[in-house]
Amino acid sequence: MAKEKETDVLIVGGSAAGLSAANSVRAWYPNKRVAVVRNVSYTVIPCGIPYIYGVLNSVEENKISDEGFLKNGIKFIINEVVDIDRKNRTAEFADGSKIKYERLVMAVGSKPMIPPIAGTNLSNVFPVLKDPAYLQGIEESLKESEDVVIIGGGFIGVEMAEQIRHKGNCNVTLIEALPRCLMSCEEEIGVKIEQELRTLGVDVLTDTLVEAISGDGKVKEVRLSDGRSIKADVVILGIGAVPNMELAEKIGLKVDKKLGIVVDEYMRTNDENIFSCGDCCTKVSAITHKQTPVRLASVSALEGKIAGSNLYKLNQKSRGVVGAFTTKVGNISVGTAGFTKKMCKDNNIDYYEGEITAPDRHPGYLQGCTAETIVKLIFEKKTDALIGGHVIGGVQAADMTNILALAVQQGVTVNEISCIQYATHPLLTGSPLVYQVMWAAENALLTQQKAI
Amino acid sequence: MAKEKETDVLIVGGSAAGLSAANSVRAWYPNKRVAVVRNVSYTVIPCGIPYIYGVLNSVEENKISDEGFLKNGIKFIINEVVDIDRKNRTAEFADGSKIKYERLVMAVGSKPMIPPIAGTNLSNVFPVLKDPAYLQGIEESLKESEDVVIIGGGFIGVEMAEQIRHKGNCNVTLIEALPRCLMSCEEEIGVKIEQELRTLGVDVLTDTLVEAISGDGKVKEVRLSDGRSIKADVVILGIGAVPNMELAEKIGLKVDKKLGIVVDEYMRTNDENIFSCGDCCTKVSAITHKQTPVRLASVSALEGKIAGSNLYKLNQKSRGVVGAFTTKVGNISVGTAGFTKKMCKDNNIDYYEGEITAPDRHPGYLQGCTAETIVKLIFEKKTDALIGGHVIGGVQAADMTNILALAVQQGVTVNEISCIQYATHPLLTGSPLVYQVMWAAENALLTQQKAI
Repeated sequence: MAKEKETDVLIVGGSAAGLSAANSVRAWYPNKRVAVVRNVSYTVIPCGIPYIYGVLNSVEENKISDEGFLKNGIKFIINEVVDIDRKNRTAEFADGSKIKYERLVMAVGSKPMIPPIAGTNLSNVFPVLKDPAYLQGIEESLKESEDVVIIGGGFIGVEMAEQIRHKGNCNVTLIEALPRCLMSCEEEIGVKIEQELRTLGVDVLTDTLVEAISGDGKVKEVRLSDGRSIKADVVILGIGAVPNMELAEKIGLKVDKKLGIVVDEYMRTNDENIFSCGDCCTKVSAITHKQTPVRLASVSALEGKIAGSNLYKLNQKSRGVVGAFTTKVGNISVGTAGFTKKMCKDNNIDYYEGEITAPDRHPGYLQGCTAETIVKLIFEKKTDALIGGHVIGGVQAADMTNILALAVQQGVTVNEISCIQYATHPLLTGSPLVYQVMWAAENALLTQQKAI
Repeated sequence: MAKEKETDVLIVGGSAAGLSAANSVRAWYPNKRVAVVRNVSYTVIPCGIPYIYGVLNSVEENKISDEGFLKNGIKFIINEVVDIDRKNRTAEFADGSKIKYERLVMAVGSKPMIPPIAGTNLSNVFPVLKDPAYLQGIEESLKESEDVVIIGGGFIGVEMAEQIRHKGNCNVTLIEALPRCLMSCEEEIGVKIEQELRTLGVDVLTDTLVEAISGDGKVKEVRLSDGRSIKADVVILGIGAVPNMELAEKIGLKVDKKLGIVVDEYMRTNDENIFSCGDCCTKVSAITHKQTPVRLASVSALEGKIAGSNLYKLNQKSRGVVGAFTTKVGNISVGTAGFTKKMCKDNNIDYYEGEITAPDRHPGYLQGCTAETIVKLIFEKKTDALIGGHVIGGVQAADMTNILALAVQQGVTVNEISCIQYATHPLLTGSPLVYQVMWAAENALLTQQKAI
């Protein structure tokens, strides 16, 4: 039997959370050895997956290169951890080999939710897995397809629909059970994105339930509960993800059956030598301070960083998540940070709001004026703190959303936002007389005042 | 003699501060009549002036249309206020006519600084005034020019140099007395912008003093203190601005001879019925809480808004300025909020810093990856609060700068920034593993910790 391997830090999982944790360990503890175990030949950029089927030319182009990590002294082990002996701090691989560790980070991610309907096991029905070979398989199937059905109008479904339609000549149908797409965003955002998808030629069906997927070995059609059938050579399932926690359960870590491996604000599990981060573990809302099921690569990267920094000394604390999210469909970019009005109502939070629409360059004659940009801000009535910010506009929607993400996280008030001294420039932003972040706050403030 | 005119609110000055104040009065006090006095036929976008000579086709294209203001019930008076009877609350115009007011807002702006050298009065030597007819005159002169010299490497000088070079076939020389352009920004920003200007064919001379401008009625050359002479058909002066305060002094308002009309945080002068905002009045730094000579259209718009809201009831307070500023030269966009390292040293503030460079899209293969983006953050050692943020990159530099402007204003700490949950997307931002705002903070944090 080969000599048992050894590392200081063993990171189980090589996607956003695991890689971020590895970088963080190297930065905070440069003398510690770090090994990352992953069960795929290389790591794909999770948020880039839809673009493989559109603007990118291959799965390979959506790769996170190992090079920088290797240069940084991080080792990769292509294998699968099947068991962990917590007492002896030893992990066991699928091939029976073992590795000793001082600290272990569970960054094992999530897996796609499979809807409880018939036909999900047919060939050419694809949940979205982060495995390069598997993703290449989807590409091959799409090449030979005329009719593609995407089930689920969350961001993966929306982006897949846009990209597949963008690239190919096939008919693309997007099916969402809820009243509109992107239900975690404000209503206007969902409406705008659906419009944009339809303009691109995607058939968007909201409020629509799938009854079954049918075919003969290979998928042939998707049957809806209203009796209609939609032809399908390929079906993509994008209805959400569930945390991977089988290994954690097996070794006796505390888990929440719905939300994942239980961690504290330092990303510690109930084993002092095991931390967890990313899609597989629990998260707390920065607004309600309650558990929340947000799963985003940016959250994973943040948590990986925090976990890595805390392995040998508590250096950083999670401040909770605000669900900051952004995407682009056609020419429209959107972003959301914090609560929607619906979430306020669901959480019994009294709120008020302010909104503004203005061009994102000035004067309007300037070429490069990309879009009318709408910012809508939602403030908690009791505290006047920003609890939700929503952006529809041009390419700056992402960083504008991040202004709002910071403001939500910090509990910045309506007065403080409406008096920020912001930078503007004709070629880069809207006019100072209408800079959206500030003036939406001013409009919110005005709703709370009686005019003289 | 005609009946004396009357308004509730008289705003003297129709540029960014005055127009913003007018909008603010209409919003906060919809029953109050508002009149804006200006001495030009229409208002030009102040930050857009350089673009008249480049990407825009006329002065007219850089106009702020009166239409929206007129619709909003705001009156314009094209005239000049020459005196104010504070006791009787009556302003007198150049033509001898008068107008009564309840509240008056002095938003009279600044005028270009004229360097104390010979020849500034020659024809074709142009300080940059915000008068459309005058600006059209510059355009006519530029059309017939082969050699253009711009004196002053601040943002107006830099933008004028870029735009004039961009449009015409003329030789453009930019002269700066200090060691580099954009001295209010971090050194790297100045260096990068100078490189970009040189790539565009602008001759940039830093550390260079102008001794005199000479010619025969019309300018012919610019003589440097090192003995060289530079041919010049047109000279643009862009060396700064001084507050307009003659009228304020005349009517006995308190002024600071260098910094302008003295106002408090509510934008009140020492006359309870007169407020002031914009380039003509004093400002306080949000960092040092001392007077600061920042003059930007975004500050003017903010101050106008605050002044307008306070005229009949104190509603809003200035939180001070952070000098948030952004510009674009060639393909490079830059931004600064708060202090540079030099300003820290000048103010005896101990600091530490963190920096990161990363592409602004992910993966790099994506078309639309516009630029490597550099973010540098400067934290105060005593408080760990962000006191300066600096961005070099693509078109998102502006809104990224505004994240930092908010953080500086709120005194957000290195820990808080390094744990923000930010939104990322392949088509819109860098990778979550390198999102610049957060990771620059993490790198700063790491410099303050001992590794285990």
